[in-house]
Amino acid sequence: MVDELHLKNVPKATAKRLPLYLRYLNMLQDSGVTRIKSKEFSELTQVPSATIRRDFSHLGELGRSGYGYDVAYLIEVFNEILNTDEEKRIVLVGFGNLGKALAKNNFRRNNNLNITAVFDSDPAVYGQKIDGHYVHPMSELKQVVADLGSTVAISTVPSQYSQSAVDQIVDAGITAILNFAPDRVDVPNNVHVQYIDLTTELQTLIFFDENYQKKLAERLG
Amino acid sequence: MVDELHLKNVPKATAKRLPLYLRYLNMLQDSGVTRIKSKEFSELTQVPSATIRRDFSHLGELGRSGYGYDVAYLIEVFNEILNTDEEKRIVLVGFGNLGKALAKNNFRRNNNLNITAVFDSDPAVYGQKIDGHYVHPMSELKQVVADLGSTVAISTVPSQYSQSAVDQIVDAGITAILNFAPDRVDVPNNVHVQYIDLTTELQTLIFFDENYQKKLAERLG
Repeated sequence: MVDELHLKNVPKATAKRLPLYLRYLNMLQDSGVTRIKSKEFSELTQVPSATIRRDFSHLGELGRSGYGYDVAYLIEVFNEILNTDEEKRIVLVGFGNLGKALAKNNFRRNNNLNITAVFDSDPAVYGQKIDGHYVHPMSELKQVVADLGSTVAISTVPSQYSQSAVDQIVDAGITAILNFAPDRVDVPNNVHVQYIDLTTELQTLIFFDENYQKKLAERLG
Repeated sequence: MVDELHLKNVPKATAKRLPLYLRYLNMLQDSGVTRIKSKEFSELTQVPSATIRRDFSHLGELGRSGYGYDVAYLIEVFNEILNTDEEKRIVLVGFGNLGKALAKNNFRRNNNLNITAVFDSDPAVYGQKIDGHYVHPMSELKQVVADLGSTVAISTVPSQYSQSAVDQIVDAGITAILNFAPDRVDVPNNVHVQYIDLTTELQTLIFFDENYQKKLAERLG
């Protein structure tokens, strides 16, 4: 349905917003809304309406000016682009506090993202049960990844051991890694790493807030 | 030291990379490195060197072509821009698994980001001690924020209660919120919210990885 050419040329910034758009479209459909204008969708998602129109334009003919967008059609297109109908069996490496939190939450609002196996290097946690799954030793990673057909891993292994954990993850055949250790790791060209860097997010937020409050105070004072 | 005009005009994309740059500069300094070229810095941070040069150019005269950048000077400038010398007393709202993980980790690698008080609405956890601090009831939020002089909060409150929690956080005088519930909340214009949306990060990563692997397979096969 979606033009392959369009799909391949989706800019990264646009692709980043697709899951957000999809979540809100599903919420709209659940509320019985069948059609939405970019301005209304902008208010809901807090993404500027010009950005929404530009993002949608990368994906082909999705709506008409003035008429708005058909919610069900957008959902169909976005699901196809994001391939959300296919279950992703995710392996989680690192069963500390953060790993526990992720395993317990397990992307419940998204039926097709499932943490299916958990690994740690600490023998003390082997065999612990979390959300129906046992914690495996790292030595079983390669076999379990092959058995599950997984291509996606989440690593919560701390920075000092992150490269070593990622090496084992890559060796097991994983090509997409969400890494909660912000220090950059070396991976082969065909492996994608996305870093979650909470310190950076927080520092950036504080930077913008402090500058804004300072300017506000100057203007008022 | 840093030109105020420059500071105010730092693009958001640049500001987002400053904490990352600063972390690597500190690592370089710890290893005894005193000067670095943008190409070397690019290899370390995995940010394209053209991006690094453009980012640095927004911040004034930081180095000379061919000579490279003085590490100690960059650290001084970036610390000043990010105001990292000042302690940020962060309040954490929501003491579930994720809240516990954040409170225990408490940005240890960053001396001036400190979770200083923890709040929850569940009486069962009031008075629990975490990293030297007791969990407070939400009713004490306003008083504690005033006592601490906090302007920054982290919310791990689940989506369905997120707006209500954020309303209380804003009412307490907080202007910067890191929110782990991805659904957009309404806040006054002077309040900044940064969303951590792990599902979106994961879906985007999978989208790029699957498209890349598909193209790679086509090329090889």
